[in-house]
Amino acid sequence: MTYPPTPPRATDALLADLRRDLPRSALSSGPETTAPYAADRSGNRPDGVPLAVVHAANSDHVRTTLRRAHALRIPVVPRGTGTGLAGGANAGTDSVVLDLSRMNRILDLDPHEQIAVVEPGVIIAELDHAAGEFGLRYAPDPASAAISTIGGNIATNAGGLRCAKYGVTRDAVLGLDVVLADGTAIRTGSRAVRGVAGYDLTALLIGSEGTLGVITAATVRLRPLPEATVTVAASFATFAEGANAVTALTAARLEPSMAELLDGPVLAAVDDAQGTDLRLHGGALLLLQWEGRSAAADAEGAVQLLWKRATSIETTNDPAETDRLLAARRLALPSLERLGRVLIEGIAVPRTQLASAVREITAIAERRGVRIFTFAHASDGSLHPVLVLDSDTPGIPDAARHAAGDIFRTALRLGGTLTGEHGAGTLKRNWLAQELGPEQHALQQRLKAAFDPHLILNPGKAL
Amino acid sequence: MTYPPTPPRATDALLADLRRDLPRSALSSGPETTAPYAADRSGNRPDGVPLAVVHAANSDHVRTTLRRAHALRIPVVPRGTGTGLAGGANAGTDSVVLDLSRMNRILDLDPHEQIAVVEPGVIIAELDHAAGEFGLRYAPDPASAAISTIGGNIATNAGGLRCAKYGVTRDAVLGLDVVLADGTAIRTGSRAVRGVAGYDLTALLIGSEGTLGVITAATVRLRPLPEATVTVAASFATFAEGANAVTALTAARLEPSMAELLDGPVLAAVDDAQGTDLRLHGGALLLLQWEGRSAAADAEGAVQLLWKRATSIETTNDPAETDRLLAARRLALPSLERLGRVLIEGIAVPRTQLASAVREITAIAERRGVRIFTFAHASDGSLHPVLVLDSDTPGIPDAARHAAGDIFRTALRLGGTLTGEHGAGTLKRNWLAQELGPEQHALQQRLKAAFDPHLILNPGKAL
Repeated sequence: MTYPPTPPRATDALLADLRRDLPRSALSSGPETTAPYAADRSGNRPDGVPLAVVHAANSDHVRTTLRRAHALRIPVVPRGTGTGLAGGANAGTDSVVLDLSRMNRILDLDPHEQIAVVEPGVIIAELDHAAGEFGLRYAPDPASAAISTIGGNIATNAGGLRCAKYGVTRDAVLGLDVVLADGTAIRTGSRAVRGVAGYDLTALLIGSEGTLGVITAATVRLRPLPEATVTVAASFATFAEGANAVTALTAARLEPSMAELLDGPVLAAVDDAQGTDLRLHGGALLLLQWEGRSAAADAEGAVQLLWKRATSIETTNDPAETDRLLAARRLALPSLERLGRVLIEGIAVPRTQLASAVREITAIAERRGVRIFTFAHASDGSLHPVLVLDSDTPGIPDAARHAAGDIFRTALRLGGTLTGEHGAGTLKRNWLAQELGPEQHALQQRLKAAFDPHLILNPGKAL
Repeated sequence: MTYPPTPPRATDALLADLRRDLPRSALSSGPETTAPYAADRSGNRPDGVPLAVVHAANSDHVRTTLRRAHALRIPVVPRGTGTGLAGGANAGTDSVVLDLSRMNRILDLDPHEQIAVVEPGVIIAELDHAAGEFGLRYAPDPASAAISTIGGNIATNAGGLRCAKYGVTRDAVLGLDVVLADGTAIRTGSRAVRGVAGYDLTALLIGSEGTLGVITAATVRLRPLPEATVTVAASFATFAEGANAVTALTAARLEPSMAELLDGPVLAAVDDAQGTDLRLHGGALLLLQWEGRSAAADAEGAVQLLWKRATSIETTNDPAETDRLLAARRLALPSLERLGRVLIEGIAVPRTQLASAVREITAIAERRGVRIFTFAHASDGSLHPVLVLDSDTPGIPDAARHAAGDIFRTALRLGGTLTGEHGAGTLKRNWLAQELGPEQHALQQRLKAAFDPHLILNPGKAL
């Protein structure tokens, strides 16, 4: 008498399917090889390690992976270069990592149309460099430009140093090629700068952290390099005075293309790491930039307005000097990472509430006994409080959890929002539900189900 | 023996519910009173007239109407001032019109935060005027500003004359109060300029033509009035030369805040209606504007670049003279409406394909024997071909239908899209499905169902 074979576990079946349907070079399995793909740079690790990593070389590999995983109800976690700071690419036991870093070709770059079509694994700085050969640039300028991918920037709707003028990733993306959870491929948007047919799925997918679909190509807008750029670095006694300076510039119609504001603790950390003396000049540093034909006049107007309030002020149009001034911002996070595990949060408040928000964050840090460092895209009211934890303590200590809760509560009380510029993150999820309220949260879950009925795409993220 | 009463028809039951739950002043019924609410300005009438009109005075009236209609599966058609040009507010037999024009209060206008919170029935020009008292403005500047509402502008993601610099309605809306099909109220976005919690429902609702929810309030961004504005009106021998002029400006990094291009037939129609002599100066008119501190220098640079190509060129910074120059654009549609029933379409093409698109549209007009007039937001590649039909012929003649199909086919072939700047419209719906493809069309229908499972909200629109 023969018995039917024991049905293989779904994970075994998926591995067998992927081995059969993908080239050998596109699949890794076994805990030693998959372990490095379990976590991103958030300092937060999931339980276990992924079942397998698919190193997709093209959209067919993406489609095959999703079709098989969908049929077997196995979670799939898309991943670029793994530089995320909110755990968006964390992948635990029995999940499959869909590594898109090999899909890194610039498929088209049309200088007349001022657009590029890129695969998701293209590094932002490489796209920007390629555009630069035609006098163009990719305007969003995330501090992570040298290491992060366009796919990850889209998944988190990343902001950047030039967001004051050019907006965030959403403002730069015209259309997407997307593979849905069941392996269906769709194309949203078009090469036209304006115009949306039907519901705006491009906007919905941006910032959805890989929970609605996997991006296999993006059509992005490029912008002309400005004729002139002038940078002003102004130190102030306090963060509040720096924030007030930005309000004064807005009122004087001197809106800069960049307004990055760093608090005293961040300056001290950069000084320690880089050997600078920023903290000596004041308790906050405001980095401003103007572009275009009136850049010099605008910067001069700003200096006239601010020089009495500032503890020091410096202006340059020299590229090397500009890089030196902006290094404080670009090196802020790496400098903080030397101090411990960083948890970077993102909130946005009405612009006039920026100083209040940082005052409250300082009080929270003292009350909870947690080190918190804050920098802001000041003209947008968007803030990044960075909690630095001891490197040798695993998980998230209660004090940090409470501090994060206090920060989110502050954002909502000030009329703001828990923004996901780096992704919703692990700490933020419960608070997100609170911000949305039960009705909207339920609606967002119905939307998720409309894209991904078996909830296999990056489960536990975004919502 | 007693029988149970015959169940009243659902429409009778709804009327009874609404009479009971709404104040008398908020409800109209009977064909004489509801007939004026059957159609918008599209010149396209549905079959029959609405069952009732709810004149909502507040969001409770909206919630009540939707809750009752949802329970009884009766279609509800939201409506502002009825100035839509694509049939988006058309409401036929057994539907209820939800008239939002009485909800026309500016609830908040915060000059420091540069935001306003408005009810959906606020007229764009009134919002702009209120902002002007604080040196601010509502940047999108639809040609219909004097008559159209913010709710309708959001429902169709309306563009405007300043879209070259400030984008479309989507770029001005920070958050929405929305009542869903079942009467549930949600609030999307926040007063913060940046930041989205969860999926970007604000972006999804904008342009959805009242098919996903009914907007009861909007938080919009205001912008500072520019220090200076300079307008250049340049005539060219042909539309193609006008389009090339815009490309040349872009290449010279002289991007204007406005670049409206009108073709010869539009100019002739404006001349006939307004007694001007625009057509004498050339076969196309390009209206350009620069703003800010470098406006005069930018405009001077543009004149230097264009004066040899143009058949005439005129520059002004005088407000009255500016209004005179822009009148050609603002009066274009009213001038065409004197010639017959207008069907306004909206397509967008890659910017470099603008001249090709108009060349094809001209050929289509000849081949199909249909009068077509075209104006464009030239720096975005967005075009409005306006078909003018005989006023005394009902419905859409075959020739017009075929011409519209040819236009849409042209847009897709040139890499563009069927944009819904005035709504998807009746002529466009079949083509929309073709552009989206069956997979994305099905996904969009699942999204619709996630918001509105009984499909009562503005059925037959948008998708």
